[in-house]
Amino acid sequence: MEREREVVSVLHGGMIITMDEEQRVFRDGGIVIEGDKIKAIGRSAQILAEFSDVAHHILDLTGHILLPGFINTHVHSSQQLARGIADDVDLMTWLHHRIWPYESNMTQHDSYLSTLLCGIELIHSGVTCFAEAGGQHVSEMARAVSLLGLRACLTQSTMDSGHGLPPSWATRTTDQCIKSQKDNYDKYHNTAHGRIRIWFGIRQIMNSTPRLLIETRDAATQLKTGIHMHVAEIPYENQLVRDVHKVDHGTVTYLDKIDFLQSNLLAAHSVWLDNNEISLLSRSGVKVSHCPAAAMRMLGFAPVREMLDAGVCVSLGTDGAPSNNRMSIVDEMYLASLINKGREVYANGTTDPTALPAETILRMVTVNGAKSVLWDDELGSLEVGKKADIVVVNPSSWPMVPVHDCISSIVYSMRSENVISVMCNGVWIMKNKKIIHVDEEEVILKAKEASVELLKRAGITLQSRMNMI
Amino acid sequence: MEREREVVSVLHGGMIITMDEEQRVFRDGGIVIEGDKIKAIGRSAQILAEFSDVAHHILDLTGHILLPGFINTHVHSSQQLARGIADDVDLMTWLHHRIWPYESNMTQHDSYLSTLLCGIELIHSGVTCFAEAGGQHVSEMARAVSLLGLRACLTQSTMDSGHGLPPSWATRTTDQCIKSQKDNYDKYHNTAHGRIRIWFGIRQIMNSTPRLLIETRDAATQLKTGIHMHVAEIPYENQLVRDVHKVDHGTVTYLDKIDFLQSNLLAAHSVWLDNNEISLLSRSGVKVSHCPAAAMRMLGFAPVREMLDAGVCVSLGTDGAPSNNRMSIVDEMYLASLINKGREVYANGTTDPTALPAETILRMVTVNGAKSVLWDDELGSLEVGKKADIVVVNPSSWPMVPVHDCISSIVYSMRSENVISVMCNGVWIMKNKKIIHVDEEEVILKAKEASVELLKRAGITLQSRMNMI
Repeated sequence: MEREREVVSVLHGGMIITMDEEQRVFRDGGIVIEGDKIKAIGRSAQILAEFSDVAHHILDLTGHILLPGFINTHVHSSQQLARGIADDVDLMTWLHHRIWPYESNMTQHDSYLSTLLCGIELIHSGVTCFAEAGGQHVSEMARAVSLLGLRACLTQSTMDSGHGLPPSWATRTTDQCIKSQKDNYDKYHNTAHGRIRIWFGIRQIMNSTPRLLIETRDAATQLKTGIHMHVAEIPYENQLVRDVHKVDHGTVTYLDKIDFLQSNLLAAHSVWLDNNEISLLSRSGVKVSHCPAAAMRMLGFAPVREMLDAGVCVSLGTDGAPSNNRMSIVDEMYLASLINKGREVYANGTTDPTALPAETILRMVTVNGAKSVLWDDELGSLEVGKKADIVVVNPSSWPMVPVHDCISSIVYSMRSENVISVMCNGVWIMKNKKIIHVDEEEVILKAKEASVELLKRAGITLQSRMNMI
Repeated sequence: MEREREVVSVLHGGMIITMDEEQRVFRDGGIVIEGDKIKAIGRSAQILAEFSDVAHHILDLTGHILLPGFINTHVHSSQQLARGIADDVDLMTWLHHRIWPYESNMTQHDSYLSTLLCGIELIHSGVTCFAEAGGQHVSEMARAVSLLGLRACLTQSTMDSGHGLPPSWATRTTDQCIKSQKDNYDKYHNTAHGRIRIWFGIRQIMNSTPRLLIETRDAATQLKTGIHMHVAEIPYENQLVRDVHKVDHGTVTYLDKIDFLQSNLLAAHSVWLDNNEISLLSRSGVKVSHCPAAAMRMLGFAPVREMLDAGVCVSLGTDGAPSNNRMSIVDEMYLASLINKGREVYANGTTDPTALPAETILRMVTVNGAKSVLWDDELGSLEVGKKADIVVVNPSSWPMVPVHDCISSIVYSMRSENVISVMCNGVWIMKNKKIIHVDEEEVILKAKEASVELLKRAGITLQSRMNMI
C-alpha cells in the first residue's frame, strides 16, 4: 500500500524535450510525477484529463521548457573554496604549490562547505546529478549532497605513489587506499534515498602503482560500481607512461594492457589519444568526460568529434573551480560547441560550423551523462518509470529571446539566468531561483570565511595583479 | 553658471578598479560624479570628507566592485532578432540563405526593436559603449541607443559589389553608399548628449570596389571619424584578394597597398594574418576587435598573443546574435582567455595557462576598447575628467564566491548575474538589475512578434531538429 500514499504532481503547459529514443518534444506537454518517478508523459490536454483528479499538486508551466536534469560528469566539489587561487599559472605551480597544499590542508568542515557551495552553483545551472572526480572527505561530500537534495556518484581521490605529494598523503599505502574506498562504499553507497552512489577514484596514472590500479578494478567489479580517473591529460603523462611501462603511445594503451579499460571506467579529459587509443576506448565501452574549459585552459583539444564518430560515449564536465572557474554545465555546452567547431581548422584549414550540432551537445549532458554514471536505466531522459529529475527553463528573458530553434537556443543562448527551477528525485531543490534545502546566503558567508582560513593554513598567498591602495 | 546646477553624486565603500595608467585599485574607494563626468576619485574616507556636504546623492556600495563601463567593439545590433536562425550551418548557408535575406527584409521598426533588445543584453553584461559593425537603418539604431542611454559608434553596412547580394542591395552605387553614410553623419553624429558618434562602415573586401574603399577612407579622414570593417575573416577571402589584386598574402596586405590602413580603422576579427600583416597593423595603428566566440565557431583562431606582442591595440567584441549566440562581453572575456591559452598548443605542443592573463583581458574591454573606438580621451578608465561610465558588480553571490584574486575573478568567474548596476554618461541605465529607460518586458514581447513576421517575410524556415509533437 506504500505506493498509494505517494504524492502525485502534474506539471503542464510547457514544452517538454524528452531526450527519449524517439527524440520526442511535446510543444504543450504534461508530465505526472508520483513519488520520485515519472508516472506519465504526453500532451497537456491528455495528461490533465487523466490525472487532474488524483493529483495533489498541479503546476502550470506555460511558456517554459522542461528537460531532463543535466548530468555533470566531472566535478571536484572539494575545490570550490579554491576558485581563483591558481589563475594564469603554469601547470606545475597549479598542482604542487596551489591545489595539493589546498586539498591536503582541508578539514572535514571545509569539505562540507565546499561541496555545499559547489552544489548551489550546480543546481543554478540545471544539474541534478554529478560525478565527483575525487576529494578527501567523502563523508562530508555525502552530507552536503544529501542536504541539497542532489544526486551524485562520490569518490575519494587515491594516490599511492608519485613525486611531490604533500607529507600527509605520501605515507598512504596501496592497502590503505583500497580499504578507505571500500569503507566509504559500505557507509554511503545507496544512501540519501538512493541518490548517492560510491565509486572508486584514481587520481591519475602518475600517482598510481600498478597494484592500486588492478585492485581498484577488481574491487569496483566486485561491488558493481564505477571508477573515475583522470586519463591522458598532458603530453608529459603519456611520455612518462611510455618510459616506465614500455608501451607504444600513452596512458590508454597501458591501461588496455593491464585490462583496466572496462565499461565501468569514466575517463576524465582524455585529450592526448591516438586513433588506436580511441578504438580501444570504444571497444571496451569506456566513457569519457569532456571538460571544454579546463581542456582549453590547461590541457589541449580533446578529439571529441573523433571519439563520437568512433562510438565512444562522451559526456560533459565542468572540472573544479580552480580549473575553469565557472562551474556551470550551461556554459560548458556552449563551449563544447564552439571549441569543437573551431578545432576543425587544424585538420581542414577551416572551422566546421556544422560539427557537434546542438542536438549532439544536448545528448552529451543528458543521455550520455546518464550512461557515463552507469545510471541510464533511471536517468538521462524524461520517460515513464525513470526518476523525476527535471530542469525548468524560462526562455522569455533577454539572454534567449527570440527563440527560433528551441534546441539550439538551449545549447547556445541559454545562460544560468534562464534556469529557474530544478527537481531531483521528485523533489524541488530550486524553485523560482531559490535553493530550497539550504540557506544560500549562510553557505556563502561561511564558505568565504573558511576559504580564507584554509589558504592561510596551506601557506598559499597570491600576489596582487594591480596597485592596491 | 551651467556647471553649478549639475547634479553631484558620491559612490563610496566599494572596491574601485580604475584601469588608470598606474593600475590603481582602491580597496575602499569613493568616486564623485558631477553631471556626466568624474570629478574626483580616491579613498572613501577622503572623498566623503570632502564631498558629503555638496553631494545631492550619496550611495553606499560596500561589498561591491566598480569598474569602467565595458566597451564591446563589434556588435551587429540589427541582428538581435536573428538569434538562432543560423545555428550549425555552413558559412555560405549562413550568409546567403539566412543573414542577407534577414537583413535585407528588415523594416525600420524591426531595426529599432532589434537594437533595443540587443542594448538590453549589452547593458546586462556591463557594456556602456559599443561599436556597431553595420546594419541598414542607422536612424533606428540611433533612436534605440538614445532611449536606452547607451553610448555607441554607429555605422551603416555598405556594399557596392560582390556575388549573391539581395536584389535591393545589388543596385546600390558607390556614390549612393558614400552619400548615405555622410547623410547619417550629418544627422546623427554627436547626438544623444554626445553619446552617439557616426562612423563609416565597410562590410568586407569581397563586397567593396576599390573606389568605395578609397572614398570611404578620405571621407572618414575629412570628418575625423572612424571606419569599421570585417577584415581577413576566412582563408577564401585572402585567396580571392590574392587572385584579384595580385598581392602576396591577403586583405591586410592589399589594404596597406591602397593606404587604407590608418589609425582610425577598426578591423573586426582579423583571423587570417601572416607576421608581416601583423607588423603592418601595428605600424599603422589599426585597431583589432577580437571576437572569440564567432571566431571559434566560424572563422578560426586569431593570432591575438602575436598581435598584442607586436603592439597592436586589440579589444573584444561579441559580434552579432546569429554568430555567437550570446551577446555578453562578460562571457567573451572568459572565452578570450580560454581560447588564447589553448591555442598555444598548436605552436608549442602544450597549452600556455599563463597566456593572456586576466589583467590583459580586462584592459582589452576597457582601455583598449576606448582606443579602438577613438574615444580614449574620455572613456576606458575611471579618472578625473573622464565620462562617468561605470559598472557595479556584486561579487558575493554564488558565481563568484570566494574571491581570492579580484582581477581574475572578474575575468574568469563573473557572469552577467553579477553585474547589478550600470551608469553611462553620469546616468544610471540599469540599477539593481532593472533597465531604467525602457520597459524590458514590453521590448521582449514586441521583438518576439516582429522577429517571427520578419522571418516569414524573408522566407526563412528552419527544420526541426527533433520529433515535435
